[in-house]
Amino acid sequence: MMTTLTLSDARALATTTMTRAGHAAKEAEIIADHLLDCELRGLPFGGLARGLAIVERIRAAQESPGPIRVVAETAVSANLDGGDQVGYVVGMRALELAIGKAREHGISVVGARNTWYTGMFSYYLEKATQAGLAGMIAGSGPAVVAPHGGTEGRFGTNPIAFGFPSTPAPFIWDIGTSAVMYGEVMLKARLGADLEPGQAYDGTGFPTLDPAAALEGAFSVWGGHKGSGLAMIVQLLGMMTGAAAEPPGVSDCGLFIVLVDPRVLTDSADYRRRVAAFAESIRETRPVEGGGAVRVPFDRSVACREEALRRGTIEVPETVVTALRREAGHTSRGGAHG
Amino acid sequence: MMTTLTLSDARALATTTMTRAGHAAKEAEIIADHLLDCELRGLPFGGLARGLAIVERIRAAQESPGPIRVVAETAVSANLDGGDQVGYVVGMRALELAIGKAREHGISVVGARNTWYTGMFSYYLEKATQAGLAGMIAGSGPAVVAPHGGTEGRFGTNPIAFGFPSTPAPFIWDIGTSAVMYGEVMLKARLGADLEPGQAYDGTGFPTLDPAAALEGAFSVWGGHKGSGLAMIVQLLGMMTGAAAEPPGVSDCGLFIVLVDPRVLTDSADYRRRVAAFAESIRETRPVEGGGAVRVPFDRSVACREEALRRGTIEVPETVVTALRREAGHTSRGGAHG
Repeated sequence: MMTTLTLSDARALATTTMTRAGHAAKEAEIIADHLLDCELRGLPFGGLARGLAIVERIRAAQESPGPIRVVAETAVSANLDGGDQVGYVVGMRALELAIGKAREHGISVVGARNTWYTGMFSYYLEKATQAGLAGMIAGSGPAVVAPHGGTEGRFGTNPIAFGFPSTPAPFIWDIGTSAVMYGEVMLKARLGADLEPGQAYDGTGFPTLDPAAALEGAFSVWGGHKGSGLAMIVQLLGMMTGAAAEPPGVSDCGLFIVLVDPRVLTDSADYRRRVAAFAESIRETRPVEGGGAVRVPFDRSVACREEALRRGTIEVPETVVTALRREAGHTSRGGAHG
Repeated sequence: MMTTLTLSDARALATTTMTRAGHAAKEAEIIADHLLDCELRGLPFGGLARGLAIVERIRAAQESPGPIRVVAETAVSANLDGGDQVGYVVGMRALELAIGKAREHGISVVGARNTWYTGMFSYYLEKATQAGLAGMIAGSGPAVVAPHGGTEGRFGTNPIAFGFPSTPAPFIWDIGTSAVMYGEVMLKARLGADLEPGQAYDGTGFPTLDPAAALEGAFSVWGGHKGSGLAMIVQLLGMMTGAAAEPPGVSDCGLFIVLVDPRVLTDSADYRRRVAAFAESIRETRPVEGGGAVRVPFDRSVACREEALRRGTIEVPETVVTALRREAGHTSRGGAHG
């Protein structure tokens, strides 16, 4: 059962829930904007349902989160200790630092550790590209994914993304390096549904279709030995921030950001036009027989967002809305921190 | 038929050939060292046979190459016009600039365009990691590879590589983003051998096993839609140097280098140990049933090189050695620039 929410209601619900979970107003707005953007772009795993996961994670923490601290900084670099705060807030702080430094000096590297749920990297890269910058973001996490040829978790689901400024829309590529998303396995475990063959191993190292067994074992990596190597690279990039190679539970993810201002290499305006022309040449590639138009990354989610903004509403599972309303105190004041 | 060459004979043959092709002594040594390293590491496509391809490309050029020029530079960045010189020489110049700037400031971005045959990126990254740096290198090229779902070339075979300092050996991942290597298609065309299914399309857009038809059409991309996106990213990184989106023939490849000194984020010595421990944890992962030990990228080629260095010789196809000796003037003085 899905519930239709207006965009302003959805935003208010997310903001209130995050405020009730202990965030200051500005932080709650940062988180809500990120969650809403995922809903608008048709990525519900990172949307309002994630808001519930954030509340659960905050409630389960042994200690209160600390402040976000800059633990190392130069003109072109910074490293943050996220204070065990949610990654949406830490990530935006890291991004703002990276944008400022790259605009001033042409390139920057900014890391963050001791954080969790860092969100959709395309969200950050869209903001970086709007500032005229190109960049890469990679994020390490708990060891739930096995390397190619192995059956034990050694790294996280490890997203990596690149973005390039272009008009009218940036060129953004944002992937996870695991064969299946964590949220998808969690959802299937809840629904009693099967995984697809090749997506996971159980705790004894045998292939499994059972999501509960997969959560005790390891997920497979995407892309064979090449993809497995990329997943390792992402873990090593995250570890450069000081994040653990195998952090316990949902904690100590490493966020690694490099931004480049194309003007230090070439004419920025010309480059933006060339990126757009390249994207157009991809869309116009002759398709395989019987195939549809060739797709450019990010196009589909931008179209989805435009449609949602026109419509003015999103569809969210009723169970998610009910639980969020309870947390937000709309139906009960005894919830969240009660 | 293979010929056994001592390492010093192989190096002398490569150096002499490159000198005869018009390179100064120092440049010839740079190229020879790179070609030899590929032979030692068991990557013969990039070895002595490539030396012949370099000579052919120089001979086919309409104009003499120009000097390598720095066309843009800041404290943390540089962009080079390679003057249509071979990429092995341009790449080393770019790498040296990138290493110097990253060591001084913590991060650097260096590009190069108007060059060709940029070699094995792991070669450059091994040198960067020896200087204590981590980094990424990506290289764009002529539009011989089709995007996922398409049948026309839109980007090059587009290698991308990452390297991390570690003791005793660095952690280096170096892949091509096409389903088949250019050299492999060329070789099969020469031998009259078939490609594997799914590796290429002919000029009319239909799948083909015929390497000659593939050279008139397009190669497939690696890794489905995710890999296709990565190949596009590499092309856009290369284009940031000013390299063309679709350069004609073997020309105007774009080389994009970012190096980071881990010390700006974390304790360098500790990070090196953690990279080594992570690699070891990968090797020790419980394998899939019936499978061998899980592999770490670069391990196999390092072992291959150590074995070749112990042996003191390499095996090279007799036709390659004969042709190189002709170019080097060992059997005929009338060759190269005759």
